Amino acid sequence: MASLDFWFDFASTYSYPAAMRMEETAARAGVKFRWRPFLLGPIFFEQLGIKDSPFNLNPVRRNYMWRDIERICARQRIPWRKPSVAPRSSTLAAKVAYVVEAEPWFPSYVRAVYTANFGEDREISDRAVIASVLEGLGQDAAAVLARAEAPGNPLRARTEEAKALGLFGAPTFVCGPELFFGQDRMDEALEWAAEHQDGGPVPG
Amino acid sequence: MASLDFWFDFASTYSYPAAMRMEETAARAGVKFRWRPFLLGPIFFEQLGIKDSPFNLNPVRRNYMWRDIERICARQRIPWRKPSVAPRSSTLAAKVAYVVEAEPWFPSYVRAVYTANFGEDREISDRAVIASVLEGLGQDAAAVLARAEAPGNPLRARTEEAKALGLFGAPTFVCGPELFFGQDRMDEALEWAAEHQDGGPVPG
Repeated sequence: MASLDFWFDFASTYSYPAAMRMEETAARAGVKFRWRPFLLGPIFFEQLGIKDSPFNLNPVRRNYMWRDIERICARQRIPWRKPSVAPRSSTLAAKVAYVVEAEPWFPSYVRAVYTANFGEDREISDRAVIASVLEGLGQDAAAVLARAEAPGNPLRARTEEAKALGLFGAPTFVCGPELFFGQDRMDEALEWAAEHQDGGPVPG
Repeated sequence: MASLDFWFDFASTYSYPAAMRMEETAARAGVKFRWRPFLLGPIFFEQLGIKDSPFNLNPVRRNYMWRDIERICARQRIPWRKPSVAPRSSTLAAKVAYVVEAEPWFPSYVRAVYTANFGEDREISDRAVIASVLEGLGQDAAAVLARAEAPGNPLRARTEEAKALGLFGAPTFVCGPELFFGQDRMDEALEWAAEHQDGGPVPG
C-alpha cells in the first residue's frame, strides 16, 4: 500500500476544498494517507518575514483567489461563504487536531472546522466555535479543549517538522522526498504515491 | 466555437510545459484559443514592488519549483535543462512574438523559444539566440528582428492589457471575465471555455 501525507492549515483557503474531498479521492485511488495539520503562520514569517497571508500582499491576486475558490467550491458542490476575516488564526483548531487525530471521527472534525471557516464564516479561533464543532460530533468539548490546551501539545514539534520537509504553503501532498503543492495537484500526488510504494526514494 | 486566451511569459518556468502542450490539448478539447505573450516583469514591479521573480524571494519555494518543473517535463516528455540564469529577460522574445503572431509558424516560434530557454539553457535575451530560433524556422532573422525592434511594437499596450485583465502570474487562461492561473488549470479552463460559448459573461 502506498503512503502519502496530506499537509493542511485550517486557515488556508485552498486547503478547504482539498480537505473536503481528500478521503474520498484517496480511497478511490487506493492510496492510504495521513492527515497532517500544521501552521503556515510561522513558516510565512520565517520565509517571507510577514505576519499575514501572502494573498494579502497583492490585492490583484487575492481577488482572483476569492473568485477561484468560489468556482472550485461550486464545482465540488461544497458550501462557500467568503470569510469576513482572512486569514483566521488556526492555532486552536490545530491544537485540538493534534490531541484527537487518532480518533475515528477525526476526518469529520477536519471537515467540520473547514466548513465552519469557509462554508459558514464562523470564527474558528473562538473556543465557543470549536466547542460547538466538537459537540456536533458528539464529543465532550470541554474535556477535549482542556487536553488541547494542556502542556505537551505537539504544536511546536509539528511546525518544525513541516519546516524540515520544506513546506512553504498549503495544501501540500508529501510522498517520501516528493512534494506536490496545491489543491489542483491532488490527483498527481495520488498517482505518484500509487506508483512509488511506501513513498521511498525515487530513482532518477 | 468557444474561445480562450492563453497568456504566457517566455521567462516563466511554469508557462513552458503549458505552452508546449497548449495547441494539442486545446485541439483535443475542441476549443479555439489565442496565444497571448506578455511581460510579467512590469506587473511584478507594480503589484509586489520587486524587479525579480517572486520565486527568488523564497529559496524554499524556488527549490520546490525546480524539482516540480523537472517532474512535469518528465511526465510530459519534453526536454528540461535547468536554466543557469532565471528569470531571463523575455522582452526581445515578446517583441518578436508581437510582429509574427499572425504567421502560420507562430506556435512553432513559441515552442522553439521555450525549448531554448528551458530545454537547452540558452540566453533568450540574446539577439543571436532569437536569430537562430528564427532561422531554424526558415525565416529571415535579420528582417524579423528589425521589424520587432522598430518603433510601433505593441509591447507596452499588451502589458497594459494584461494589467487591465487582472493578471498577476503566468500562465493564465482567460475566458471572458474568468481567469484560471497555473499550468495545472489548463484542462479546467478548456472545459470552462467549452461550456461558456464565446467566453461571454457568466451568470451567477
